[in-house]
Amino acid sequence: MSLLGAVVSDRSTDVLRTLRSVCATRGLDDLGGRLGRLSELVRWDMKEVAEALDALPSSGSNVQRAAHHLLEQGGKRLRPMCVVLAHRVGTPQGPLSADVRGLAVAVELVHAATLLHDDVVDLGDVRRGAPAARRLFGNAASIFAGDWLLVDALRRVREARVEGTLDRLLDIIEEMIEAESIQLARRVPERDASTGAQTVAPPMTVDDYFRVVRGKTAALFRWATWAGAKAGGLGTEGAEKVERYGLHLGIAFQLVDDLLDYAGDFEKTGKALFTDLREGKMTYPLLFARDADAEAAALLERLLEEGAPAGTPAGVARRTLELALLERMRQCGALDETRTLASEHALAAVRSLEDLPDAPAREALHTVALATVERER
Amino acid sequence: MSLLGAVVSDRSTDVLRTLRSVCATRGLDDLGGRLGRLSELVRWDMKEVAEALDALPSSGSNVQRAAHHLLEQGGKRLRPMCVVLAHRVGTPQGPLSADVRGLAVAVELVHAATLLHDDVVDLGDVRRGAPAARRLFGNAASIFAGDWLLVDALRRVREARVEGTLDRLLDIIEEMIEAESIQLARRVPERDASTGAQTVAPPMTVDDYFRVVRGKTAALFRWATWAGAKAGGLGTEGAEKVERYGLHLGIAFQLVDDLLDYAGDFEKTGKALFTDLREGKMTYPLLFARDADAEAAALLERLLEEGAPAGTPAGVARRTLELALLERMRQCGALDETRTLASEHALAAVRSLEDLPDAPAREALHTVALATVERER
Repeated sequence: MSLLGAVVSDRSTDVLRTLRSVCATRGLDDLGGRLGRLSELVRWDMKEVAEALDALPSSGSNVQRAAHHLLEQGGKRLRPMCVVLAHRVGTPQGPLSADVRGLAVAVELVHAATLLHDDVVDLGDVRRGAPAARRLFGNAASIFAGDWLLVDALRRVREARVEGTLDRLLDIIEEMIEAESIQLARRVPERDASTGAQTVAPPMTVDDYFRVVRGKTAALFRWATWAGAKAGGLGTEGAEKVERYGLHLGIAFQLVDDLLDYAGDFEKTGKALFTDLREGKMTYPLLFARDADAEAAALLERLLEEGAPAGTPAGVARRTLELALLERMRQCGALDETRTLASEHALAAVRSLEDLPDAPAREALHTVALATVERER
Repeated sequence: MSLLGAVVSDRSTDVLRTLRSVCATRGLDDLGGRLGRLSELVRWDMKEVAEALDALPSSGSNVQRAAHHLLEQGGKRLRPMCVVLAHRVGTPQGPLSADVRGLAVAVELVHAATLLHDDVVDLGDVRRGAPAARRLFGNAASIFAGDWLLVDALRRVREARVEGTLDRLLDIIEEMIEAESIQLARRVPERDASTGAQTVAPPMTVDDYFRVVRGKTAALFRWATWAGAKAGGLGTEGAEKVERYGLHLGIAFQLVDDLLDYAGDFEKTGKALFTDLREGKMTYPLLFARDADAEAAALLERLLEEGAPAGTPAGVARRTLELALLERMRQCGALDETRTLASEHALAAVRSLEDLPDAPAREALHTVALATVERER
């Protein structure tokens, strides 16, 4: 197993090296320098997006406060950045149009809406390093806040009147809900605050996992990049390439997210390790370990039997099992393999843009892909 | 107080008599005969709507099952009927177009979406005489089911391509959420499953109540009638009249709903008395009694102090207080006054249609208004 671990680790380094070298189109090819140029490029556009997000009404009801609380934590704002950059591929110069700004704000609002609903579904207590909106303003306000942001987002897309963007967004949101429903059905043990019942869910397969990731995460990245590209004036073919970038970026992003749940540093992520598993979510690192390592599978089995409800601090017994499982996950290469897969998707994202003109926005999209894999939070 | 009760009761009878006589455009003016003609008129159109609702996918996830479970309980389907009838004002003959069917299905889906979310918010256990979807499939599935139906509804409206209907529906849904947030803020005592905190909400005024009713209920009736009228080919002015009908019908409908929470027969409503108050909702009959009768106000105060959490069967002490309050509500005329107000709005609804041609669809809309006031469930 440690041999496999080593092999995987080598492959991981290879892919990451390839990704870095593919991205290295300038003399200054370290990530820091690249991020500096990215930040320079999008600074004014993203400032406008941030101002529009800040301008959402917040002084009224708990519903508005719940929405505002989540939005003011900031987050990475990666989806609006995708809109902005995809748009800058076709329209490198000039001020950000109200239409593009509307699309960029909308994608962040859709994302925020899903977080507000997810935190109620998962009984999540912490979001973006702060108490979840539902802990401060209640489940009810959090549900309605999600509804509100969703409708507000659709209205903005409608007003932007970029052909096809509203229809596609409605499709995408349905895909997201379908993915959530698969994740829900595979939650282990299936558990609900209202019924208290614990039932045995059919085991999650790696196929299920990728169906969930494509729907839950990659779909909205696809929309962000496609809508941005259309708004920037790219033709059908160009927009499809940028959309493919979005698909692979989204998958890479989620894989890293799932990896950080096992390999992250609390100081940086603001999230305790094993949060996903405590919420019953089986993600790629865990699935890999379960399928590759009998000892990991046995430890996982025992953890699922423990079934500590989400929101309860883990007891010493559970914590010991978790640490043992984590060690097996490291040993059998589950963590390395997850990062490798993420790097491969980031590479696929970068390669989707190959035929597009070499311009600052394309380089910036490369940087986003590279940074997504190397991020620590 | 009993004098006031008698006066109000007289006025109630008067308004209802006026409503009945205004509605009596045919020789056969009893409600039974009118309902027969209404049913004859909409039978085929509503059958198509029902089939389209039944055709929603239901075999997949718990999310789909939760949505389907609610829809298969049927309900009154009053909102789609409003679409159909408003459309028949301008287009009396011919098969129902796919566009109109789409709008009619959409309005029921939006309504169902709000019920699915409301039941999670209110921890509701019973809906339409059956266990609430959240009790069978969980809060999580119920939340996502609401999201799904909402998006599906918007897509149908989008596909119907009746000018202005999508923009207006987005506005209307925002109005609905705003109204929910006012209701939430005035819930007594403010209470949430996630935080467990009970805080003192500012007292609900009659003005607050009508703001909530206009947004939560009447707004969607307005949309149903307006969208139906537009789809049926009525001009701006005609559609506005029909929309005004929808506004008043919606208010009348909600007033009767709130009345039935205190004056309904469990065998018919499938809902225990005092459900609203146990969920912390202050409705018109209660507000009237609180403001008109010191003894009722004192009893209400004691009930709020008891603060039995929703979902728990009321204890003997609480039940005794409830029955005493109910008796005061009867005595001080709160119940009669609520029905009177409902009759007045139904009358205003009927009068909104005065200038429209005297046609079967107009008579049917009269019947709907009359039946809304006289309904027992």
